[in-house]
Amino acid sequence: MGDSGIVIIGIDPGTRVTGFGIVRELSGQVSLVDAGTIRTDSKKPMCARLGQIYARIAGLLASHSPDEAAIENIFVASNSASALKLGQARGAAMAACAVSGIIVSGYEPTKVKLNLVGNGRADKSQVAFMVERILGVKNTKWALDTTDALAIAICHLNERRFARMAGK
Amino acid sequence: MGDSGIVIIGIDPGTRVTGFGIVRELSGQVSLVDAGTIRTDSKKPMCARLGQIYARIAGLLASHSPDEAAIENIFVASNSASALKLGQARGAAMAACAVSGIIVSGYEPTKVKLNLVGNGRADKSQVAFMVERILGVKNTKWALDTTDALAIAICHLNERRFARMAGK
Repeated sequence: MGDSGIVIIGIDPGTRVTGFGIVRELSGQVSLVDAGTIRTDSKKPMCARLGQIYARIAGLLASHSPDEAAIENIFVASNSASALKLGQARGAAMAACAVSGIIVSGYEPTKVKLNLVGNGRADKSQVAFMVERILGVKNTKWALDTTDALAIAICHLNERRFARMAGK
Repeated sequence: MGDSGIVIIGIDPGTRVTGFGIVRELSGQVSLVDAGTIRTDSKKPMCARLGQIYARIAGLLASHSPDEAAIENIFVASNSASALKLGQARGAAMAACAVSGIIVSGYEPTKVKLNLVGNGRADKSQVAFMVERILGVKNTKWALDTTDALAIAICHLNERRFARMAGK
């Protein structure tokens, strides 16, 4: 870890809306670098939308040079057609990370909630509240896809710290 | 269409093996440009494997400059976990095409079989036989993922021709 700390990008992939959140940890303090959503044009063919996701993620990686990435593991209990769509969005985002040489860790939604809120069944507004509190920001009016992505990034920072403390 | 005819890349995506087949149509004659498989390292994390698929497809697009791409629409009747995995491979391949500005058309496996063999329930060896016959090659010992990808590319050429004949 250099003077600039460690920078993590969290990604909550979706074909319609992909949330992203970039955070920095420096001297034990977590701060916001950038956050938002990638909204694809639903009138465009799927291929073009996946290209938008890839290009925007690649652009964020080039701008902010995160050290590692964390992504939501997709909940697979829905039907296979929606799993396929989500998989495509996830594949485009993960390929962008891999091409930039960034390792991606995956987290189940329940793991992220447990990590941030202390309850694996917390609702999205509770997660959003904790994200704002940890980052020391208020009334951001972030979309839930954005707070989810930031939560994944913060969860990954916490897991890294636990792993280091455990000597893993 | 210039003097070099029209070049199509067909892709049969999979996280373990992705087949690709590149064909050229010139003066009504279809010929082989390149074909093979992208085999990912199953010991590597999924992210790295998706990066391999993306990078190899991007390399093929740069080398052969296909005009259009065709991909197998994934059969979604299996479980959602495998649909998710296949979706990821498909997303990585489609993102590579989109970033290179190449339009991707999707075809159902039954459509490809009907188009080449005249029977939507033809088996893979019948498809392989027709692919070799159309391309005028013999005893290629291609993997079935390769012949499937070539079949998708040839199907797309046929569909384009039908569409032009119908004045679409």
